[in-house]
Amino acid sequence: MLKVTVWNENRHEQKNPAVRDIYPDGIHGTIAEFLKAEGFDAGTATLDQPENGLTDEILANTDVLIWWGHLAHDEVRDEIVKKVQQCILDGMGLIVLHSGHFSKIFKTLMGTSCDLKWREANEKERLWVISPSHPITEGVGEYIELEKEEMYGEHFDIPAPDELIFTSWFEGGEVFRSGCTFKRGNGKVFYFRPGHETYPTYHNEQIQRVIINAVKWAQPVKREQPVYGNAQPLEEIKEKKGEGQ
Amino acid sequence: MLKVTVWNENRHEQKNPAVRDIYPDGIHGTIAEFLKAEGFDAGTATLDQPENGLTDEILANTDVLIWWGHLAHDEVRDEIVKKVQQCILDGMGLIVLHSGHFSKIFKTLMGTSCDLKWREANEKERLWVISPSHPITEGVGEYIELEKEEMYGEHFDIPAPDELIFTSWFEGGEVFRSGCTFKRGNGKVFYFRPGHETYPTYHNEQIQRVIINAVKWAQPVKREQPVYGNAQPLEEIKEKKGEGQ
Amino acid sequence: MLKVTVWNENRHEQKNPAVRDIYPDGIHGTIAEFLKAEGFDAGTATLDQPENGLTDEILANTDVLIWWGHLAHDEVRDEIVKKVQQCILDGMGLIVLHSGHFSKIFKTLMGTSCDLKWREANEKERLWVISPSHPITEGVGEYIELEKEEMYGEHFDIPAPDELIFTSWFEGGEVFRSGCTFKRGNGKVFYFRPGHETYPTYHNEQIQRVIINAVKWAQPVKREQPVYGNAQPLEEIKEKKGEGQ
Amino acid sequence: MLKVTVWNENRHEQKNPAVRDIYPDGIHGTIAEFLKAEGFDAGTATLDQPENGLTDEILANTDVLIWWGHLAHDEVRDEIVKKVQQCILDGMGLIVLHSGHFSKIFKTLMGTSCDLKWREANEKERLWVISPSHPITEGVGEYIELEKEEMYGEHFDIPAPDELIFTSWFEGGEVFRSGCTFKRGNGKVFYFRPGHETYPTYHNEQIQRVIINAVKWAQPVKREQPVYGNAQPLEEIKEKKGEGQ
Repeated sequence: MLKVTVWNENRHEQKNPAVRDIYPDGIHGTIAEFLKAEGFDAGTATLDQPENGLTDEILANTDVLIWWGHLAHDEVRDEIVKKVQQCILDGMGLIVLHSGHFSKIFKTLMGTSCDLKWREANEKERLWVISPSHPITEGVGEYIELEKEEMYGEHFDIPAPDELIFTSWFEGGEVFRSGCTFKRGNGKVFYFRPGHETYPTYHNEQIQRVIINAVKWAQPVKREQPVYGNAQPLEEIKEKKGEGQ
Repeated sequence: MLKVTVWNENRHEQKNPAVRDIYPDGIHGTIAEFLKAEGFDAGTATLDQPENGLTDEILANTDVLIWWGHLAHDEVRDEIVKKVQQCILDGMGLIVLHSGHFSKIFKTLMGTSCDLKWREANEKERLWVISPSHPITEGVGEYIELEKEEMYGEHFDIPAPDELIFTSWFEGGEVFRSGCTFKRGNGKVFYFRPGHETYPTYHNEQIQRVIINAVKWAQPVKREQPVYGNAQPLEEIKEKKGEGQ
Repeated sequence: MLKVTVWNENRHEQKNPAVRDIYPDGIHGTIAEFLKAEGFDAGTATLDQPENGLTDEILANTDVLIWWGHLAHDEVRDEIVKKVQQCILDGMGLIVLHSGHFSKIFKTLMGTSCDLKWREANEKERLWVISPSHPITEGVGEYIELEKEEMYGEHFDIPAPDELIFTSWFEGGEVFRSGCTFKRGNGKVFYFRPGHETYPTYHNEQIQRVIINAVKWAQPVKREQPVYGNAQPLEEIKEKKGEGQ
Repeated sequence: MLKVTVWNENRHEQKNPAVRDIYPDGIHGTIAEFLKAEGFDAGTATLDQPENGLTDEILANTDVLIWWGHLAHDEVRDEIVKKVQQCILDGMGLIVLHSGHFSKIFKTLMGTSCDLKWREANEKERLWVISPSHPITEGVGEYIELEKEEMYGEHFDIPAPDELIFTSWFEGGEVFRSGCTFKRGNGKVFYFRPGHETYPTYHNEQIQRVIINAVKWAQPVKREQPVYGNAQPLEEIKEKKGEGQ
């Protein structure tokens, strides 16, 4: 059974009754719930818990980590970010949601600013499937329509994704690469755009389906990790004459 | 005229007479020389200069930065690395050579460990052209053969390159993605494997040709940079009713 | 001086006065004109000329071929398509415009149906730059806006492009990967979406700029082509015992 | 239960007793056997059967098709190739083995010559894992070593693969992209190099493991296919004035 940890900074839920109304158990609670219903072993972790919620034990028991953050990216401690990065390079999957584009862990894995255009204007988003052969799109129609969402617009300052899965159309005139996969070390990363805290996006079944599919896709591959460092030759190396070393 | 700065930590040259014999003006001097002969405005910068050789003025006057480091990656100050990263995101080209795979700037841009297998055994390397339509291969034969080089072997822990230009065969039994392009922000990055300090690799004309081609390829694109942050709608957004924000 | 051949089926111009009004010298004439003004050696070729306009001599004198077709894809003879494909594999650049997505040559190079959604409804298109470091975007703003164009919408059935340069937003609710690069053999291919015959799209300076940039990008690399077939070993192969061959 | 059809031209087995000794039930028989042992519903099809072994019924009952051919590529009828291409665009997985690089179906899907260097010299091949996070490498070590194989060398004239999974080292001095994924339409394609008919390659457990993993990876995604053609607008399009259509 796949072990999923849903991490959330869990601040909007504490501050804003409108968010709490939509997500009474927090965004993390809602996401964990539909993952459990799918048969995953899903737990939650939040910023204000010890070790920012990500103790060694929890990380060791996580196949796929889901990340939602916005207000408090800077409060995630650097040594925790380093640990999470190492877990990913060691094979853990990572799903970064919405405003997590500016999280330390995502920026660290991308190497770029991860900046973008944005606007909160109750506008329509339509996520078009670009890669219909990809398992992350299983059971999803040609597009997912969200009546009201925050806008994120290009240019999105990320490395070209390994695979572009969704591209969003926004009512106000922008487009956005809203579903992107990246491989880092032995781990797989999926960025998925929707999920502004004041909208019921994570209650949308199509959005849930994408996250469920992404968890399966991001699961670690069972194999021994590569060995790095000084290596003995596998074949005989001939002696050579003359200058150089 | 393209402005190139060749950065070198310049330590092996000071410590090891064998290296000094091969590169009397330092690796940076040799590289700058053949770039000048090609018509570039090429200067050098070294670790022990003020600001690690990379003052704001020098960076502002650099279209493409070439990087060679090995012994002293840690001595490059973090704020200098941040500045260089920003310059690349703003459009400066970067060519990372050989042991620069472990430089702070390359690891920062990749988001991975950049680790690999290695061995110093005077062994033969043969770099095969994988992407014959790429301008970095202009004037280069089917492969470049180096009689004696250090071995770097897979797995090379980098993100999948945007373009794979060369793959090396090593006498001792390994392979390596030895010419890789990456885009980051408005900038372009080329990693090129060969160039262990105890071999005359940068005197090889085919190797020089690749570096010259890479400088041209990596030059900044003349355009205004994208604008990020809050954005006004370009189209009218309809008012919507009901819950959510 | 780069040699460009602008190929056009040149049928709408003969049948539809509205098209002729916009392009009195044909779409090919307009494109060739702005390419000449840029300093290229640009000629034209049309379907109804001998050999579909693409004689061996013309192909041999073409560095980059531009392709516009729509009504008469089937009239391009298969042996001409094969020749053009071979020229591209040998290094010639190809720029496929708009409805050329359904040309024999593009479908042959892609291996897919190249199908898409479409609609003629005088609607607004906005092409967003996705890859700001790419030379095809030189001198182009954050987006190009076209007041009226035909809509092409995803899913666009092509292989994932090597580089995604532009993505279009359409007024009617769709998105489209409207600037895509592909490498095939020793040649480079750029697909660029805009250019429905009843709109003055190729008179737009930003559109012209993209095509000019694309010609430069697509030019052949000067190098000897790879050698294929039976190959002598470059290293000694040890004799082995036992079964097998 | 995944339905796999193993297609083999089955000619070497008829002509060459040495091949028959290694594969008494044909290459297809050996591959189908280990796939069945893994729990797949695996059948076989061969060139000399009606419809080249690929009737509509068989294709309709195939989730993943495996392809081995060499001597008789030209005998596969063009209309069968078209049908297989359509099945792949509709979602069927395809695994092309070894000399299948020159099959009509692979060349059609790639759009290139698919040419390469080759040599039969009983030489050692070592397939290095390049993408350790990819499910096709599950349970596979850092490399797979084959004591004796035919050599295939770069340049391999294919489009840049979507994912590069393995790269081969050859004793005679060449390298080769020996495990490559491609997406085409709704289908997924994996090319896997090893398997010359005079060597017992498909009896190797690591090679079997890769093929088993590839079958799982290449399985169709359960979703409705994209709709193509003329499309009604999803949003209101404003009337515009002036010239153009």
